[in-house]
Amino acid sequence: MEMLSCHLERSSNIPLYEQLYNFIKNEIIDGRIKHGEKLPSKRKLSEFLKISQNTVETAYEQLLAEGYVEGISRKGYFVLAYEDLEYVETQHVSNRLPKQSKEKMTYHFHPSWIDTENFPFAKWRKYARDMISKEKHSLLLLGDMQGELELRQEIANYLYHARGVQCSEEEIVIGAGSEILLQQLILLFQKDMIYGVEDPGYHMISRILKNYPNSVYPIGVDEEGLLTKQVENTPINVVYVTPSHHFPYGSVLSVNRRNQLLKWAREDSNRYIIEDDYDSEFRYTGKAIPSLQSMDHAGKVIYLGSFSKSLIPSLRISYMVLPKPLLERYKQVLSFYQCSVSRLDQHILTEFMRKGDFERHLNRMRKIYRRKLDKTLEFLRPYKKQIEVIGDQSGLHIVLVVKNGMNEEELIQKAKEKHIQIYPLSSYSLEKRIESDPMIILGFAGIPEEKLENAIHLLLKSWNMTT
Amino acid sequence: MEMLSCHLERSSNIPLYEQLYNFIKNEIIDGRIKHGEKLPSKRKLSEFLKISQNTVETAYEQLLAEGYVEGISRKGYFVLAYEDLEYVETQHVSNRLPKQSKEKMTYHFHPSWIDTENFPFAKWRKYARDMISKEKHSLLLLGDMQGELELRQEIANYLYHARGVQCSEEEIVIGAGSEILLQQLILLFQKDMIYGVEDPGYHMISRILKNYPNSVYPIGVDEEGLLTKQVENTPINVVYVTPSHHFPYGSVLSVNRRNQLLKWAREDSNRYIIEDDYDSEFRYTGKAIPSLQSMDHAGKVIYLGSFSKSLIPSLRISYMVLPKPLLERYKQVLSFYQCSVSRLDQHILTEFMRKGDFERHLNRMRKIYRRKLDKTLEFLRPYKKQIEVIGDQSGLHIVLVVKNGMNEEELIQKAKEKHIQIYPLSSYSLEKRIESDPMIILGFAGIPEEKLENAIHLLLKSWNMTT
Repeated sequence: MEMLSCHLERSSNIPLYEQLYNFIKNEIIDGRIKHGEKLPSKRKLSEFLKISQNTVETAYEQLLAEGYVEGISRKGYFVLAYEDLEYVETQHVSNRLPKQSKEKMTYHFHPSWIDTENFPFAKWRKYARDMISKEKHSLLLLGDMQGELELRQEIANYLYHARGVQCSEEEIVIGAGSEILLQQLILLFQKDMIYGVEDPGYHMISRILKNYPNSVYPIGVDEEGLLTKQVENTPINVVYVTPSHHFPYGSVLSVNRRNQLLKWAREDSNRYIIEDDYDSEFRYTGKAIPSLQSMDHAGKVIYLGSFSKSLIPSLRISYMVLPKPLLERYKQVLSFYQCSVSRLDQHILTEFMRKGDFERHLNRMRKIYRRKLDKTLEFLRPYKKQIEVIGDQSGLHIVLVVKNGMNEEELIQKAKEKHIQIYPLSSYSLEKRIESDPMIILGFAGIPEEKLENAIHLLLKSWNMTT
Repeated sequence: MEMLSCHLERSSNIPLYEQLYNFIKNEIIDGRIKHGEKLPSKRKLSEFLKISQNTVETAYEQLLAEGYVEGISRKGYFVLAYEDLEYVETQHVSNRLPKQSKEKMTYHFHPSWIDTENFPFAKWRKYARDMISKEKHSLLLLGDMQGELELRQEIANYLYHARGVQCSEEEIVIGAGSEILLQQLILLFQKDMIYGVEDPGYHMISRILKNYPNSVYPIGVDEEGLLTKQVENTPINVVYVTPSHHFPYGSVLSVNRRNQLLKWAREDSNRYIIEDDYDSEFRYTGKAIPSLQSMDHAGKVIYLGSFSKSLIPSLRISYMVLPKPLLERYKQVLSFYQCSVSRLDQHILTEFMRKGDFERHLNRMRKIYRRKLDKTLEFLRPYKKQIEVIGDQSGLHIVLVVKNGMNEEELIQKAKEKHIQIYPLSSYSLEKRIESDPMIILGFAGIPEEKLENAIHLLLKSWNMTT
């Protein structure tokens, strides 16, 4: 090719090199410049278009980088074959999917909701300010794969004093939520592991396992917790359990059942127990129930904890304590995963724990939640013939057995009409049961204390139980 | 049982109820109180021990909650069978694993390192302060599963303008690092998918896939990027590629190869391309290379992006853009996963982008990194007979082909002796190659500008190439 007649707009906002690049690219795409043609030399084109050689060079290099032309040493730039007119300039078309309408609710009784108004924002903000600082610029780089050492030390110390968990910081793995850690555990275990889960129960692990080939067996629950005897007649290798406060019934796994379960695990080297201690911080009567991990001397219990109930659900910080043989395996097969929690957030939390703010927060929240629970129970008490309450010793939710003649669906629907969101027990069950009376999970923590009376009143009204 | 002779220490820090609880529990464990025995009534024991009935009740309820006793209505508390002396009080023994010693390095040339000193800490701190506030207390609750809508809108807008990516916020999924998102993709695809990866390349996906049953095929790379022809002779369904800036060679996937790859993907409904656009923000010559996603009109490309290079590696914020059929599948099988990134952090980033700080930061960092690259090249230039440089057009690293007679291991070891950490190309290769000359990946971004000369000088000195 002798020359390129390209009109350049000198007053445009688009740089000259980019105009030239666009022109040549379009000529190639439209087939006006053919495969194998040589572009004009930089010197000649710059003289012809009255622009600098640098401008031409930049345009050519862009074409080279994107593969429209090739550079042959001491010969120049040659147009490459353009097989397919695939590439088309992007157009700003709106291809948005239709928005899902979400009904506005006045009261949410979701069991994951916490009291957000009494969070110590000023303290958290202070520690955040201290961490986001040029003096600590190295915190922007990737940190320890298992999570920051300082945070793991604080967690180990807290777990020992509050939960009787014996571990060193080396055995702790921090992750962005229990789902992430459960997924890592599933990968850590052999592919042929078979899982046993509480039913009803916190169904996250069952949902995660649906995307894996492993089988899942539901195990029943009564007022002493998991029916451990049921485990013995199955091929289960891994039992997932909430021993301190069963979700959602609130029962505590009894000492005998604990021992049965630990004994079962010891009988085979390939058996493990995942102890999910999701809200043990909030027990309102007596001393906290010791963790199952603290009773285990055979390295069979994986302890799983979280700051979702005790601090901030949306912070996404959970942790697990791995028994030593699993820790070794973790280091072999999963240690290439970067820790999924922001390093700055880990250090903010470390300071919060180290300075005693976490303990103070827990003590304060325990009182607030206890008052909320007491009020909830008080407002329900006049209806005790029609509403039985289960699990009122601890945690951020209770279970209501409702005997007003409505079925589960009606209870949910009637509440919804009054803009109250409640959750049925059946959505936490794997096996359909024929219960005589429907059950509702009532998370009371997220409702402001002064609004509880109104919320409960409105709920009962929607169920035609008060006027 | 008539009575319990328990000595209570009134001056102790341990509450009376807890002393009583401990005493009875130990009596049960040690067999001094037998299975079936009835505990003294609360009234009688409180009179006997001269403590309040409440104290006795609290102790009994704790024993009840932990399953040591059972309460029989209107009869009292009875000791349960204690099958196995499993439970032993925790002892504060130190079971720490030995610490791994980490050698202190003066200079790290790691390709993941960024310039941390020029981060706009004041701005970030300001936005953090605005978000951690009682007015925004609802941000403590769980947010949108795919990530905050506002952040997805900012990302969609940025991707359209900077990378030609066409998507709406609905198609974006935010996650705590590319590993998390790649793992979700693996679950999203059918189990029988076979993966093709660049070799050498960013090996994260191959490492993740080792824990899944899927096969992985290495595909070669040359100066035009991935050898797409090699894909055609394999059973590969999913190709993982870094088209804008191959890691680690730095080559750009040419237009023809792009078209070949897109054509290959279109030929079967079960074929997909994962485009990892990990550091496209930093291109120093000409205009940015358009994304492969912008050339795709068949919904075959999953675009993967990250704020690790452009902002903060330890923040752990990445995102992927799913083509609509995959988005539907995502909603069906994976939408129960909570977003793994802190909601507060998502809103801090949203403000940072919305107010134009992200763009300003990128423009500033592009200049800083370009100066660092220029200096690195300048200091290496006198040694060009012994050190060939690959990939000096963009990104935060270059590749050195070293021809001083040392092998890869010697180069690493000699540098280490001078406290310089460098990384061999071989650790990014799946297949062992017999290369005539060893290659080193040199991430220059993390070295302060004023120290670059010294760092390069020291490195060359360790290789006996200067005095």
